[in-house]
Amino acid sequence: MSAEPRGFSRRRLIAGAGGGAVVGAAVGFAGGRAASPAQASASDALDLSTAYDFYTGDHQVGIATPPQRHLVFMSLDVVEGTTAEQLKVLFARWSAAMATMMKGDPVGSVEPSRANGVPQDTGEAYDLSPASLTLTLGLGPTLFDDRFGLAGKGPRLLEEIPRLPGDELQAELCGGDLALQACADDPQVAYHAIRGLTRIGRGLVTTRWTVLGFGRASAGKGQKTPRNLMGLKDGTRNIKTDEELDEFVWVTDPDEPAWMRGGSYLVTRKINMDIEVWDGTTVETQHATIGRDKGEGAPLSGEKEFDTPDFKAVRHGEPVIDPTSHVALAASENNGGAKILRRGYNFTDGLNSLGQLDAGLFFIAFQKDPETFVDLQRKLGRVDLLNEYIAHVGSAIFAVPRAPRSGHFLAQELFG
Amino acid sequence: MSAEPRGFSRRRLIAGAGGGAVVGAAVGFAGGRAASPAQASASDALDLSTAYDFYTGDHQVGIATPPQRHLVFMSLDVVEGTTAEQLKVLFARWSAAMATMMKGDPVGSVEPSRANGVPQDTGEAYDLSPASLTLTLGLGPTLFDDRFGLAGKGPRLLEEIPRLPGDELQAELCGGDLALQACADDPQVAYHAIRGLTRIGRGLVTTRWTVLGFGRASAGKGQKTPRNLMGLKDGTRNIKTDEELDEFVWVTDPDEPAWMRGGSYLVTRKINMDIEVWDGTTVETQHATIGRDKGEGAPLSGEKEFDTPDFKAVRHGEPVIDPTSHVALAASENNGGAKILRRGYNFTDGLNSLGQLDAGLFFIAFQKDPETFVDLQRKLGRVDLLNEYIAHVGSAIFAVPRAPRSGHFLAQELFG
Repeated sequence: MSAEPRGFSRRRLIAGAGGGAVVGAAVGFAGGRAASPAQASASDALDLSTAYDFYTGDHQVGIATPPQRHLVFMSLDVVEGTTAEQLKVLFARWSAAMATMMKGDPVGSVEPSRANGVPQDTGEAYDLSPASLTLTLGLGPTLFDDRFGLAGKGPRLLEEIPRLPGDELQAELCGGDLALQACADDPQVAYHAIRGLTRIGRGLVTTRWTVLGFGRASAGKGQKTPRNLMGLKDGTRNIKTDEELDEFVWVTDPDEPAWMRGGSYLVTRKINMDIEVWDGTTVETQHATIGRDKGEGAPLSGEKEFDTPDFKAVRHGEPVIDPTSHVALAASENNGGAKILRRGYNFTDGLNSLGQLDAGLFFIAFQKDPETFVDLQRKLGRVDLLNEYIAHVGSAIFAVPRAPRSGHFLAQELFG
Repeated sequence: MSAEPRGFSRRRLIAGAGGGAVVGAAVGFAGGRAASPAQASASDALDLSTAYDFYTGDHQVGIATPPQRHLVFMSLDVVEGTTAEQLKVLFARWSAAMATMMKGDPVGSVEPSRANGVPQDTGEAYDLSPASLTLTLGLGPTLFDDRFGLAGKGPRLLEEIPRLPGDELQAELCGGDLALQACADDPQVAYHAIRGLTRIGRGLVTTRWTVLGFGRASAGKGQKTPRNLMGLKDGTRNIKTDEELDEFVWVTDPDEPAWMRGGSYLVTRKINMDIEVWDGTTVETQHATIGRDKGEGAPLSGEKEFDTPDFKAVRHGEPVIDPTSHVALAASENNGGAKILRRGYNFTDGLNSLGQLDAGLFFIAFQKDPETFVDLQRKLGRVDLLNEYIAHVGSAIFAVPRAPRSGHFLAQELFG
């Protein structure tokens, strides 16, 4: 019984002509991951030693940061009777704790010296590497109703997502006054961080819903674009350059509150996939539904993943890419040039109520104007061929403040 | 906004005198992971290129294999009316698929060449590294009732776990005719494997329950022994040598069926932890409950993690280690020398019905005689101080056949 280490080159199935551009471009992001020799090597290793800085004074991490392998996303409600002053203190304490945990340090004592002391840090990440942890805070529209003295102080474009075509939303998976997003390459690090933050918020916030997400850990066998649980590459045409981030993601409107400029709007959708049904369909159906082939991920009008789709191509009098395919409907060419930054994670909660494998995509998108998402989903929800296999069951929107400078905290100006 | 890679030495909190012995010894296991230069390096990287061999002809992998970071465990029931011949074919097909997926290869076509072909492999692990995937099959006691022509052919010691003190079992989290355990360092690889196996079993088996588990990804900052979600080191005194495996884990009884010799008995317990209650207790309470300190993990009678606990030590007329602490009750010294091989994973299902953080330990133990576990838990369930913070909600037992040689399949002799 012996281990058989395998090389990188043996089964490099997907050559992906433009593949190098994707990950390469990501390094150019503000907040980009430090180049890791281990990851670039033939042994396909995941580097866990990277730590990101919280006090960028610019954009929060966890938006343009190259996606880590694990997500814990939590939506929270603020307890009635909480004051703006208490929220201010909470945001200050959260900011300090986020900065500390992102360095890989515990939040206070794991083991107090006094016997009757209660540990401040819960300890399960005590001696683990920072694992590229990023922690991101979002503020929901309901935070700015009349309960906490913050009415009228919200960002200009922060409104509930309207009901959209095809929605099968469950109230308990929607909304929230606040959101905490933890992403890390170690699941125990991500879970510890969210647990630590909820502990700090005890008495002021309660958890509304939570999603645990995962991506693939390896990227060394030629896979530049991750695959979702339908087996499809997801993210081929995602935003990849600083210029696109400036154009489509970061809020620049001078009429927005100061704490929001450099921030973004975060939309989440919990999307269930009927994977057992999908798994029974033919490859032709799968190709037509998405508008790309499955192995290479090339548009049906092209040959390579990064070929630009030709939505006008015709074969035997029929469009090569069905106009109601997912790719055709979502393409920026067909949406007035609009783009969103997607940062989705796969999820499974085990089994669904029918005893079938439960799986899906926790869709996360950042954009400078939430209306961009709403317009897109209004169209997709109506006619997307993919709708036969998916259901949107959760939905939420949050304003994501800019990151503080050292000595300051998130959304500090909100509290005057 | 810049990434700040951090070194290994900066915060090596836990020196652990005997620490080197643990991981070192694991390499000596049959099925040990190939030494990975990346993991041993200061950059703390997780090697994903390792592939294990399925056809060992000896013990199945996933038992003594050093624990990978992710677990997908599935319990299945066989559909009424299924014949032994059909089960035989299923085991043969599963064995072939397990061997293929452990190499990192897809099970058949991801993209059939015929347009009306249905993909054989679901594709989400298409170009990923093998990530140390191990797949392990277990057979439950109910497989050998009179439904499938296998009555009387079961292993000698395979019986349902009796009701034990403190049990709060939920029927839907217990039992099963069959079990599939997938462990890998990539969550997408582990999920893909279980999904692929259930697909092969469609029409013959249905899923009964499933658990998704995780451990910590990094081990490079001095952490030899992982921590559970109570923040406690878990596994300090676990079985670590080939001699102990032979003595306590592998079935050698010549009266057992041939396919069971070299196998083992697998016990699972889904254990919920009241972590919000635990987090509110003092460090003194936590130390007394477990019988060890939290940071170092040393027995309260000693100074270092691997110091042998002295259960007779007395201070101010009181035992230093409470006789009802978890360590005292579970120690082999206090159980006639008995040991079990534990291979637990942390889990969280998000929130529990009270809206509190839901978390726990999916306890997995391998032993040559299930009675060893039963005796131990009968004692722990009655008086363990830890019981105030945990609840056993799921329970199951499975016989784990030996591994086949190439050209054969799991439990082949069972079908005559």
